[in-house]
Amino acid sequence: MTTTETLYTGKIVSLELQDSRWEIVRHASAVAIVALKEGKILLVKQLRRAINAHTLEIPAGLIDPGETPLEAAQRELSEECNLGGSLELISRYIASPGFCDEEIFLFTATHLYENPGTPDEDEDIEVLWLEPKTVLEGMKNGEIVGSSTTIAGCLWALTLG
Amino acid sequence: MTTTETLYTGKIVSLELQDSRWEIVRHASAVAIVALKEGKILLVKQLRRAINAHTLEIPAGLIDPGETPLEAAQRELSEECNLGGSLELISRYIASPGFCDEEIFLFTATHLYENPGTPDEDEDIEVLWLEPKTVLEGMKNGEIVGSSTTIAGCLWALTLG
Repeated sequence: MTTTETLYTGKIVSLELQDSRWEIVRHASAVAIVALKEGKILLVKQLRRAINAHTLEIPAGLIDPGETPLEAAQRELSEECNLGGSLELISRYIASPGFCDEEIFLFTATHLYENPGTPDEDEDIEVLWLEPKTVLEGMKNGEIVGSSTTIAGCLWALTLG
Repeated sequence: MTTTETLYTGKIVSLELQDSRWEIVRHASAVAIVALKEGKILLVKQLRRAINAHTLEIPAGLIDPGETPLEAAQRELSEECNLGGSLELISRYIASPGFCDEEIFLFTATHLYENPGTPDEDEDIEVLWLEPKTVLEGMKNGEIVGSSTTIAGCLWALTLG
């Protein structure tokens, strides 16, 4: 039988120790959105404190309590990019199954329209539309580092190929 | 100026609070290996305690202190699959940059040869060689869930396409 000791319970992260040795992180699940318009893909530039760097990533965010993944994706697209659209789930994956249960739901967004939202007060986000080749180059040269954006870039290249 | 409070320091995970509000997880970086032979890709089936499920993933593991990513990839390939090969770094990414600094170095391994290693005593791993279409189907039906395997499957499909 597995024993579980809770070491920390926080706002988005909890930490537990299983069988006195396995460090497991519980983390809210998240959404990420591949928004497409006229052959370009939407990326946001923002400060990521965990790696102390500004990153280029597709829009993403945590699912709030009570929200469905689709509702979270619609909210994030509005908050971060002032957009709405037709959303479709294309992939879901565990970011790092070796120690953490965070699941990421990846959506495409097409037929975009203006849909202003209220950004989180702590977010300072720059929105960019990039060409496919710029995204693939960014994955190669290390400018694009997030797993969701890497997967989005690959899936997108597959669709185009 | 950023203030940082360390809440927990563990074996593979540390937890800190930045500016009294941002929960940041520090985690050892990892490697994952896309081993290819005769048009098939190597996957391992193992229990992942964080999601309480057996997963199909490409071989992967943490980089030990003092190891280079390449050395870690060679060691994991030997320990988990009893194999050696020619390794090449093809991608690196942050699994979940919103809260954690874990970086994953993705290698291909070709020209494989027998190279028995000593598995971790706590690992119970089954090795499988799968066809490309089985991997892509597994990504669609939810049998394959890890980010490194998802990226590997996509990159591989791109190369084949």
